[in-house]
Amino acid sequence: MAGYTIVAGPRGLFFARALAEASGAPLLEAQHKLFPDGEQYFRLPGPVETPTAVVVASMFPEQDRALVEAMLLSEASLGAGARGVVALLPYLAYARQDRRFLPGEPVSVRALLRALHGVGVRGLVTVDVHKEESLRDFPGVAVNVDPSPAFAEYLRGRGYAGADVVVIGPDRGALARARRLGERLGAAYDYLEKARDRVTGEVTYRPKQVDVRGKKVVIVDDIVSTGGTLAKAARMLYEQGAEEVVAVCTHGLFVGDALRRVREAGIKLVVAANTVPKLPEGVEVVNVAPTVVRYLDYVVERL
Amino acid sequence: MAGYTIVAGPRGLFFARALAEASGAPLLEAQHKLFPDGEQYFRLPGPVETPTAVVVASMFPEQDRALVEAMLLSEASLGAGARGVVALLPYLAYARQDRRFLPGEPVSVRALLRALHGVGVRGLVTVDVHKEESLRDFPGVAVNVDPSPAFAEYLRGRGYAGADVVVIGPDRGALARARRLGERLGAAYDYLEKARDRVTGEVTYRPKQVDVRGKKVVIVDDIVSTGGTLAKAARMLYEQGAEEVVAVCTHGLFVGDALRRVREAGIKLVVAANTVPKLPEGVEVVNVAPTVVRYLDYVVERL
Repeated sequence: MAGYTIVAGPRGLFFARALAEASGAPLLEAQHKLFPDGEQYFRLPGPVETPTAVVVASMFPEQDRALVEAMLLSEASLGAGARGVVALLPYLAYARQDRRFLPGEPVSVRALLRALHGVGVRGLVTVDVHKEESLRDFPGVAVNVDPSPAFAEYLRGRGYAGADVVVIGPDRGALARARRLGERLGAAYDYLEKARDRVTGEVTYRPKQVDVRGKKVVIVDDIVSTGGTLAKAARMLYEQGAEEVVAVCTHGLFVGDALRRVREAGIKLVVAANTVPKLPEGVEVVNVAPTVVRYLDYVVERL
Repeated sequence: MAGYTIVAGPRGLFFARALAEASGAPLLEAQHKLFPDGEQYFRLPGPVETPTAVVVASMFPEQDRALVEAMLLSEASLGAGARGVVALLPYLAYARQDRRFLPGEPVSVRALLRALHGVGVRGLVTVDVHKEESLRDFPGVAVNVDPSPAFAEYLRGRGYAGADVVVIGPDRGALARARRLGERLGAAYDYLEKARDRVTGEVTYRPKQVDVRGKKVVIVDDIVSTGGTLAKAARMLYEQGAEEVVAVCTHGLFVGDALRRVREAGIKLVVAANTVPKLPEGVEVVNVAPTVVRYLDYVVERL
C-alpha cells in the first residue's frame, strides 16, 4: 500500500479517484459547503492515518476558489494527523504569468507556490507546467510530471508514430515538449517560427527546420484556452502541405467556443489529459494518473 | 508624509482612497483585467518608492478572488521596489472558522494568514476581527483595529450615550466588543445569554445582568451576514421592554434580504464601518480609515 492518504474536495475528486485507483492509496473525500456569504467550508470524514496527506485540487475552472480549496484541505490534513502535506495540482493555474513581462506585474505563479508553502505544504506535484523553472519558486520539493509517455502510448495506438509523423510545438517555448513526445513516437519534431514577408508584411508561422508536406502533424501544447493559437497553427500547417493536423494538449481549458474554433481549423483529433474536469464532448481523454503516481512516490519519499 | 505607499486593486480601492486621504500616503491603483479563462491580472502603474507597501484588499464579496488579489499585489509590490509589505484587510474573511469546531475541519483563517506570510507579507492590519487570538496565527506583526472610537463618536452625535443606553453583544464572545463601545458611551453593557424555560422548553435570549426596560439598546456585533442573529436579538429585546433597538456592526455583508429582515425586527438605525464596499442603501456608514492609520503606523514601524 502507498504511504500516503489522498485528500480531495469537489474540485479534485475526479483526479483523486483516478489516482486512488492507480496507487491503491486510501482516499478521504472532504465534505464541502458554501456559506451564504460565499465562504467555503470543508471537513475531512476521518483522520489521516498515514504520515503524508496528498491534497488533490485541479485549478480550473475557478482558479482562486480552487487555490483556497487546496489551502484549506492542507490545513485540515495537518490538523487531522498528517505530518507532511503534498499538494497535487494536476493543472497549476497562473503558470503562464511566470515572470514580470512588464514592470509592475506580479510573478503570479510564484505567489501561489509560496502561499501553499506558507500554509504548510512541503511537496508539490503538477503536470506539464508551462515553464519548468517556475517550480524553483516553491521552497519545498516540487516536480513536474511529463505526460508524454501517456500521450505517446495513446497516439501509437491510433497509428500516429514513425517517419510519417512530425510533432510541432506552436512556439519556441514548446520545443522541449515537442522533443519529448517526438522521440517517444520515433518522429521528427520542431517548433513554429514567426516570419514576416519583407514585401507584403504578411506574418506566417512555419516549422524552423522540418518540412510538413505530406506528413501527419501532431501539434503539442501545454494549455488550450481560447484555441486561437492552435487554430492559427493548424491553418498554417495545412497551407504548408500537411496531410493531417491533430492536437495534443495537456490541459484542455476550452474556454467558450474554443473547441469549435479548433475543429474549424481542420483539427479532427483533439487529445487532452485528465488534469481538468469536464472536458468537452469529442475530446479524447488520456488518463495521466498512473504516470503521476511514480512522481508522487518520489516526492513523498523526499519530504 | 507617511513612510509607505498604498497599493490597491479594484476590491480595495474604496478603502485605499479613504486611507490615502486620512494618511497623506501616495496611492498606486493597480490595473486589473480578467483573462478569458478566469485568471486575474494586475499591474502596478509605477514603482513603490517607499520602503514599505501597504496592500489594501477587502475580502467581501468574492473572498477567494480577493485573497488572490492581495497575494498578487503583494508579490507585485516586492518586485516593484518595496522591501516590506503590510496587508491591510479591512474585512478578514474566514475569520469565523478560527478553530476546529469538529474534527476534520481546517482552521481556515490560519491557512489564510500563513498563505499571505508565505507570499512575503510581513505585517497585517485588520479591523475588528472575529476573535483577536486568530491573529496569533500570522507569523509576522499583526494588529486588530478597534473601531469603537469611530462608532462611539457617531452614536454620541446621534444622541445614543449615557445612562439611557445599554450596549448588548449578541453572545458571550461579543462581550468585550460591547464593553469597549459601552465604556466610550458612558453606557451599561452586557451580552445575551441563552435560557430555556424548564416548563415550556422555549428558548429565549436575555441580557445576563442588565435590565433593558425603557432603554435605548445598541446591539453591537462584528459581522452581519444573513441578519438572522440581529433580528432575533432585537425581537427578544423589544419583548423585554427595550424602548428602541439600534444595531452597530463593523462588517456589513448583508447577504440577500438581510437588511429587510433586520428592519422587520424593528431596527431602524443600522450602522456599519466602511470595511466592505457597496453597503446597502439606508445603512449609516462610519469611516474607520482615520482610526486604521494610527495602527498602520505602528505596524510599519515594527516591520
